[in-house]
Amino acid sequence: MKILVLGYDGYIGYPLTLHLLRLGHEVYGVDNVSRRRRITKLKSDSLTPILSVVGRIEYLKSNYSNFVGQSTISLGNNPPMHIRGILNHFEPDAIVHLAEQPSAAWSMNNAYRAATTQHENVIGTLHLLWAMHRECSTAHLVKLGTMGEYGTPNCDIPEGRIPNWCLLHEDEPLQKPGDYQPCPMSGLLFPRTAGSFYHLSKVMDTLNIEFACRNWELYSTDIMQGVVFGLANPACQEELTRFDYDECFGTAINRFCTQAIINHPLTVYGEGNQTRGFLTLNDSIQCITIAIENPPLAGEYRTLNQFESVYSINRLALMVHEEADRLGLKTEPNHLTNPRKEAESHYYNPDHQELFDLGYVPTTNTSLEISKLIQKILPFKNRVNKEVIMPKVSWK
Amino acid sequence: MKILVLGYDGYIGYPLTLHLLRLGHEVYGVDNVSRRRRITKLKSDSLTPILSVVGRIEYLKSNYSNFVGQSTISLGNNPPMHIRGILNHFEPDAIVHLAEQPSAAWSMNNAYRAATTQHENVIGTLHLLWAMHRECSTAHLVKLGTMGEYGTPNCDIPEGRIPNWCLLHEDEPLQKPGDYQPCPMSGLLFPRTAGSFYHLSKVMDTLNIEFACRNWELYSTDIMQGVVFGLANPACQEELTRFDYDECFGTAINRFCTQAIINHPLTVYGEGNQTRGFLTLNDSIQCITIAIENPPLAGEYRTLNQFESVYSINRLALMVHEEADRLGLKTEPNHLTNPRKEAESHYYNPDHQELFDLGYVPTTNTSLEISKLIQKILPFKNRVNKEVIMPKVSWK
Repeated sequence: MKILVLGYDGYIGYPLTLHLLRLGHEVYGVDNVSRRRRITKLKSDSLTPILSVVGRIEYLKSNYSNFVGQSTISLGNNPPMHIRGILNHFEPDAIVHLAEQPSAAWSMNNAYRAATTQHENVIGTLHLLWAMHRECSTAHLVKLGTMGEYGTPNCDIPEGRIPNWCLLHEDEPLQKPGDYQPCPMSGLLFPRTAGSFYHLSKVMDTLNIEFACRNWELYSTDIMQGVVFGLANPACQEELTRFDYDECFGTAINRFCTQAIINHPLTVYGEGNQTRGFLTLNDSIQCITIAIENPPLAGEYRTLNQFESVYSINRLALMVHEEADRLGLKTEPNHLTNPRKEAESHYYNPDHQELFDLGYVPTTNTSLEISKLIQKILPFKNRVNKEVIMPKVSWK
Repeated sequence: MKILVLGYDGYIGYPLTLHLLRLGHEVYGVDNVSRRRRITKLKSDSLTPILSVVGRIEYLKSNYSNFVGQSTISLGNNPPMHIRGILNHFEPDAIVHLAEQPSAAWSMNNAYRAATTQHENVIGTLHLLWAMHRECSTAHLVKLGTMGEYGTPNCDIPEGRIPNWCLLHEDEPLQKPGDYQPCPMSGLLFPRTAGSFYHLSKVMDTLNIEFACRNWELYSTDIMQGVVFGLANPACQEELTRFDYDECFGTAINRFCTQAIINHPLTVYGEGNQTRGFLTLNDSIQCITIAIENPPLAGEYRTLNQFESVYSINRLALMVHEEADRLGLKTEPNHLTNPRKEAESHYYNPDHQELFDLGYVPTTNTSLEISKLIQKILPFKNRVNKEVIMPKVSWK
């Protein structure tokens, strides 16, 4: 299969590219390297020592004859003809779109960063959709969204659309508990309640992609991904992916494990009962590959909720504490004033059946994965910059 | 009251500005004049002979001492500091935001125009929200959205959010017809199903504004406006507003009436059973004024569905035909292949009670309004450019 990977230099993009190359697919990569630039500007760096951009290109070209090329265009900031030219030239069967500004905290920092996030993400995806419409409307768009698009509504979260039958779980169900009633809104997109300008940009992408499927008969898998953690299985040092732990580009488990290796308190925001879906980086790569191999029908807009299991932040901090303790590392959870405006205790019950139906076999032992991660990053403990760990951006 | 009118040079903006000035409010106007530029580029022009930009500024300054100033900044294309400076300087009590690219057809023309529409509208509103957050978080944002954000779902359309009680209008209601059932999604934003990249930009604005109210405790009235038609009541020639009839910037009734005065067939797209909410320009000005005078609470995101009554396009074409006939003008409805992808026969039952509760007294005789409009624009029949009437942009 010919697969275009947008954002191939990123945390997920690089190991996904390697995985697809090992499976024998032809891969063309696009990345504007904005993640590297922004991490440097925050005075942070990948905890893992990764190859330079040029080093990676040379490595991929030397070791994988099916890595057919790369480009550093920016989807949102370059004219739409640039991505259109790549589609015309490469004629992909599938397009994996990971090329977005991925940090919620960064988007909440100031007006410029909020606007940059929404411009790059929304206009970037819009340029891509127009290019697909004109050049390769039969390609499958696999787009990375986030579970954060839904927010934390006080009801069950379906996969993308309001289901045909709507569970009544109010105090006084009409007949007996668990009754289902027909919902007049069934089939409409389930309402999103995003909690940052970044998360909103992903909802906006959802709206544009769903419309492009409805109006132009493109087809797409829109992945609502949980929080990813861990490292993939690199064949050698050159295949290591980046690993961020700073306030903006790091995420909960990765940041906790980094804190554990330097005996820093685990920074839990607020009460810590915030509950989210999580999955390992290997699982994320597995799921994206499953989506590529099982495309939806022409004109179909399919949503997959992509995570293994839900955990509260407190539970995760405790797991990191326990696994670190077993490895002789001393660290304790420390509750900070929450810089974000979010529910710190809430109902959370998202559906995620569809990927399992397609064959997803998850990594279920999260404690073990946390232990393995701590051991993998321990050799890099001297690379940690303590200055970038604590939250500085107030969302309020 | 100190009122900032963004888009004060437009079809609604100019007569609204005059109305607010006559009521004694202090008004500051912002307009980047993009509508005039784009109409010229389409080789069209306002059917009504309007003052130049400079002419209007001179007229307003000479005749209304409470017109305190104006600026030609672009909300989306200038840095966010520009609008922030205006808010800091003027300190408005209310901000009426009409400064957006308003044409669905224009947004569907090509990738550049789609991206320009979403960039200008979404980033423009985002810059405004940040500026309000920093400079005047106690001002009331009155934002013009569109009923087109909802699209045409096969269920009742509430005002903004999913109601506490959800009407079951399926074939088999649980107990008796008209039964209401508690909805677990109540309070979430009602799902939007927009039909163009322009309409999607308005949904994106809705998402950003609702979040700004939730996160920063700004407060806003988001107006889901129906299709506006007619001319306001200018005190003199200098107070005439623009009147567009071209494929992109003209809307159904205004275009039909323009066709009537030159004996052109009335261009009905497809079957013509598309049903929408409509209101006169005078009613739109009345409703926006009511919203300004009755602000919501701090932190509240309020949605008003703003229209007088719903009509099918066929019904409107028939009304224009009949009124034109009475005035001795010969014209017939003519069904064209629909350039848009839309349901041509559908259920449509949007709620619009809230404005009536606030005191909206609508102009109810639509036939009479159509007749008056035809008579008002008849003197300008020689200004019509027939070349711009027929649809050229395919949405598919």
